Amino acid sequence: MTRRLPLARPYPSVPWGDYRPKAFAGEAVPFGVTAFREGHDRIGVQLRLTSPTGDVSLHRLEPLGDGFDRWETTVVLLEEGVWSFRFESFGDEFATWEHAADVKIEAGVDAPLMRDIGASLFDRAAAEKSRPRAQREALTAAALSLRDPSVSDDEALVTVRDPALAGFFRERPIMSLTTVGDEQSLLVERERAGVGAWYEFFPRSEGARRLKDGSIKSGTFRTAMRRLPAVAAMGFDVLYLPPIHPIGTLNRKGRNNTLDPGPGDPGSPWAIGSAEGGHDAIHPDLGSLADFRAFVRAARAEGIEVALDFALQAAPDHPWVAEHPEWFTTLPDGTIAYAENPPKKYQDIYPINFDNDPEGIYSEALRVIRHWIAQGVKIFRVDNPHTKPLQFWEWLIGKVNAEHPDVVFLAEAFTRPAPLQSLASAGFQQSYTYFTWRNTKAELEEFLSGLARETADFVRPNLFVNTPDILTEYLQFGGRPAYRIRAAIAATAAPTYGVYAGYELYENVARPGSEENIDNEKYEYKLRDWSGAEERGESLAPFLRRLNDIRRAHPALRQLRNLTVHWSDDDAVLVYVKHLPAALSPSGANDTIIVVVNTDPHSVRQTMVHLDTRVWGVQPGDPFEVEDLVTGSRWTWSDHNFVLLDAFAEPVHILHVKEQR
Amino acid sequence: MTRRLPLARPYPSVPWGDYRPKAFAGEAVPFGVTAFREGHDRIGVQLRLTSPTGDVSLHRLEPLGDGFDRWETTVVLLEEGVWSFRFESFGDEFATWEHAADVKIEAGVDAPLMRDIGASLFDRAAAEKSRPRAQREALTAAALSLRDPSVSDDEALVTVRDPALAGFFRERPIMSLTTVGDEQSLLVERERAGVGAWYEFFPRSEGARRLKDGSIKSGTFRTAMRRLPAVAAMGFDVLYLPPIHPIGTLNRKGRNNTLDPGPGDPGSPWAIGSAEGGHDAIHPDLGSLADFRAFVRAARAEGIEVALDFALQAAPDHPWVAEHPEWFTTLPDGTIAYAENPPKKYQDIYPINFDNDPEGIYSEALRVIRHWIAQGVKIFRVDNPHTKPLQFWEWLIGKVNAEHPDVVFLAEAFTRPAPLQSLASAGFQQSYTYFTWRNTKAELEEFLSGLARETADFVRPNLFVNTPDILTEYLQFGGRPAYRIRAAIAATAAPTYGVYAGYELYENVARPGSEENIDNEKYEYKLRDWSGAEERGESLAPFLRRLNDIRRAHPALRQLRNLTVHWSDDDAVLVYVKHLPAALSPSGANDTIIVVVNTDPHSVRQTMVHLDTRVWGVQPGDPFEVEDLVTGSRWTWSDHNFVLLDAFAEPVHILHVKEQR
Repeated sequence: MTRRLPLARPYPSVPWGDYRPKAFAGEAVPFGVTAFREGHDRIGVQLRLTSPTGDVSLHRLEPLGDGFDRWETTVVLLEEGVWSFRFESFGDEFATWEHAADVKIEAGVDAPLMRDIGASLFDRAAAEKSRPRAQREALTAAALSLRDPSVSDDEALVTVRDPALAGFFRERPIMSLTTVGDEQSLLVERERAGVGAWYEFFPRSEGARRLKDGSIKSGTFRTAMRRLPAVAAMGFDVLYLPPIHPIGTLNRKGRNNTLDPGPGDPGSPWAIGSAEGGHDAIHPDLGSLADFRAFVRAARAEGIEVALDFALQAAPDHPWVAEHPEWFTTLPDGTIAYAENPPKKYQDIYPINFDNDPEGIYSEALRVIRHWIAQGVKIFRVDNPHTKPLQFWEWLIGKVNAEHPDVVFLAEAFTRPAPLQSLASAGFQQSYTYFTWRNTKAELEEFLSGLARETADFVRPNLFVNTPDILTEYLQFGGRPAYRIRAAIAATAAPTYGVYAGYELYENVARPGSEENIDNEKYEYKLRDWSGAEERGESLAPFLRRLNDIRRAHPALRQLRNLTVHWSDDDAVLVYVKHLPAALSPSGANDTIIVVVNTDPHSVRQTMVHLDTRVWGVQPGDPFEVEDLVTGSRWTWSDHNFVLLDAFAEPVHILHVKEQR
Repeated sequence: MTRRLPLARPYPSVPWGDYRPKAFAGEAVPFGVTAFREGHDRIGVQLRLTSPTGDVSLHRLEPLGDGFDRWETTVVLLEEGVWSFRFESFGDEFATWEHAADVKIEAGVDAPLMRDIGASLFDRAAAEKSRPRAQREALTAAALSLRDPSVSDDEALVTVRDPALAGFFRERPIMSLTTVGDEQSLLVERERAGVGAWYEFFPRSEGARRLKDGSIKSGTFRTAMRRLPAVAAMGFDVLYLPPIHPIGTLNRKGRNNTLDPGPGDPGSPWAIGSAEGGHDAIHPDLGSLADFRAFVRAARAEGIEVALDFALQAAPDHPWVAEHPEWFTTLPDGTIAYAENPPKKYQDIYPINFDNDPEGIYSEALRVIRHWIAQGVKIFRVDNPHTKPLQFWEWLIGKVNAEHPDVVFLAEAFTRPAPLQSLASAGFQQSYTYFTWRNTKAELEEFLSGLARETADFVRPNLFVNTPDILTEYLQFGGRPAYRIRAAIAATAAPTYGVYAGYELYENVARPGSEENIDNEKYEYKLRDWSGAEERGESLAPFLRRLNDIRRAHPALRQLRNLTVHWSDDDAVLVYVKHLPAALSPSGANDTIIVVVNTDPHSVRQTMVHLDTRVWGVQPGDPFEVEDLVTGSRWTWSDHNFVLLDAFAEPVHILHVKEQR
């Protein structure tokens, strides 16, 4: 049955089933509900939040004022664990009286009655022992004044409208018909679940070198370690490694995904498993388990966390195939089914069958994850989770997080919105998104707004700008400006983004007809001259470093839900703002970043930019100072501003709003 | 925990809380769910429907194909009562094989294997005893052919693609991993809850006559009865009467809502109650309870159901005030609070206080409703339900419908969307809407689409074109074309609409500065010359009659959820289609109505109209015949058509698509 005052549609919430919404430690989370009452009387709504350790706090909600009776407040959640929350609404006796007294006394209607009702309210409040003495005295004085016939109605109106008195009631309202909503819960995970700058490299390429016979000697964890300081210097804090396990030799792929590998071709790391071991083993070329642990430690010393790939599939010579054929699909002809997308076949990979022996394969997956956790790994990038049962992931992540709440899983679910969002809802801490395919202003406006608001309670986006599988036409044909534009958007629009090695060298040649790099690193070693490129001024690394510095300096950029889209008159110039108000900011000061991007990498654009400055508390028309955090330029801006963005010089403004003194 | 195959976001559903979605008997209701599985294998989804008497039926869903993994089927529900339903998804073994076999055999990949798998599937199906013998034989033959090495792969492809074989599996799929969703329920109410043409008149005006002294003698149920045949002849089937109870004499309102009534002023019927009785009494001027019953019977004989007003409020001299002061709010000065919207006061009305003695006022309300049900009334139009607690309505309607499932409550909740939709969700069978304030093409497109789809599971709109409280600027200043336009839209866009008496006389003069008729019938008798106006050709009655005839002849117009918006190049020409496919139509034939409206009552518009003819099964570009059901004109139309609509001649086309022979 409906309760006395209706409370409906609470959020944070998940539309995909009975899953818990989530946030990360330090996240500013909007809590809201639809609340109203019959008639004209005023209501108040509060949020009762209980932290994982049992601390209770109350937060008043504000009406959004959009005609839909929605109320909202934003709270920064610091403690990790399961929070509970509920909404409570109540008749707000003071607000009801204040409104009626204001208009009725002004209109000369029922003034004595309204004054009398107010005086009674003030007396009731003054009788509350828990109010500070000064407040109680002020309330008593106000009650006396309202009752004093020598005080004119005009003077009484001053009391009705006294903001100090209103403040007393706002802080501690006189409530009636208090109605308590259902208890909800929210999972708060560690900050890294929501905030991070990711870098991806193949350890076999880092320190690989060409021998005199023309063959290439694989890099190792020891040689790859030497690249860590440069990755750290660029400001990245998560380093994701493609699978580090033995690679199948049966049906191994050659360069450019060919079926006839040469003797020196290392194969795809995703074709996991050989006589040398499976998902719990290290590829001998990369070193030993001890080397891996040393690599993880060295990364940690540079402030970098290592993320491993978790690709649940097997090369035909994976030990599982012989030991557990029941974990695969055997065809009527007695062979095991390859991975396929008919008529395409992936002959170097067998997909797992989760239905023949769920207990067996489930516990083996858990064993593998536990093994890598024991080596110091707390982040897993999960390959193609949408080709495995959703219920498997819910089980696995639930099990792992029950033991290790700090373990983070990133879903590489490049699939339709329903499975992508369901995987995120069922437990994945992060998700790859459609970002690489959202390149126009219109696409980005809708995409970024959606991330910040519609799906933020359950999907945490990781905006990778490229991957070994994805080199979009925008990057292929947009030249260097395209790389600069996409990195700037990724780094500022969401708190987590990522770059796959080679992006900083503008590697933009695709295998003809594909959306992948030619001579793809998946099938070969890449020897890159990082420092030479930087010395020649042909590297994006300094810009990436600048972006990561800006992210570190500005807490507004380390939030997911605080993006608002603003406007320009040009169909390619995208404008958005990330704002964190002082009350929610760890710095205690407003942090406001205005990003203006020319999304057309081929042109110079000049246009007017239109801002709703009220988002960061500036009245429309008032001037304010901005500093371009990339170039250091400073301008005085207002709500309408002229902008010129030359794709070939600097296609992006990342503007910091200077606080008024 | 997630089930094996995810099933999420089922509908019909209500977003406002734990309420039951609803439909009316004969309604074509879309049932849908988001369903998908991991990987590339095909799934099927079916709806298992259980009728109130326990009949179970299965319905296959079709993918909507919009990229969101939604599946849907539409079912006509006839039986009244609480239905239950659930969705079931399954791996569709045949569809998975058919897709793979098709592309792989075509590409020369794994042909023998695909043929073998198909043969096994056909054998499995042929072994199912419940399939008809001919089907089993055909399946066996197909299996033999697939296994026959003398049959070429090209010939085998013919079997793979055989629609007859596919039909066998469609009808009775080979399922795997069958997953059963949660049981849901749906309330089906009588047809009148969703379909009706309403007419509103004040019985005191019908048969009222001016006496020689200039005063007016009230009409009675007996005189009003004489108007029933005309109302029936116009095609209306519900007659709604404003309150018929004694009217308060204390603070009675005079003409045009003035505070100083003359001796002959009858007062507002909504100021209910006097020494002569309250909510269970009949105003003596109207006659006796027996007269009322006779009126109800006479209406029924004309095919008209009488709807009473239920306005829970009291005039100051209502018997409740003396007997139950606890049902009102007593102010600190000892007086009872008037209804008000500060600083405005409604001195002829006391609002009810539901919190002082909920049990008392709840059971009194129930007693009153039961009293009128006993007099033969089954429809109540509830005045201002949004000024009473939502939980009261849920309780009252639940109680009444438990005893009398055929009782219909119409909510006059002219309020914000959240309370309007919550009242509908909590039990009201029908709701007044924002229709009167949606007049432009853009407004109507959004409004009508929303009614048909977004809110149709819980809000049943009653599109009144005017009320004693609402004479919009559109009608005030749009002349006679405005009246024609609005009636045509109301009658065709939703299955329930209404007209307040006087609309057919184009009564369009407002009290200055207000949105109400001048000399409003709420405060005085109206003497109208119905037949004279019609004889002079100055009545809209013939057009209303035509509209109601069209509604009666076309089942597509008696549905809520089947409206689709189409397009024109003119910013005032609105286009929508109501389509009911043959399989869902009581006539067994497609019923398709195309409505094209010039929403600008001041101009002639000519434009191209663009139709997605696939909605009613016509291929784009194919010609079809249409007949204008108002003028009788016939044209050959296609997907792009020229239209000229002269507001001053005929601003509306209501076109029936003729079936191809």
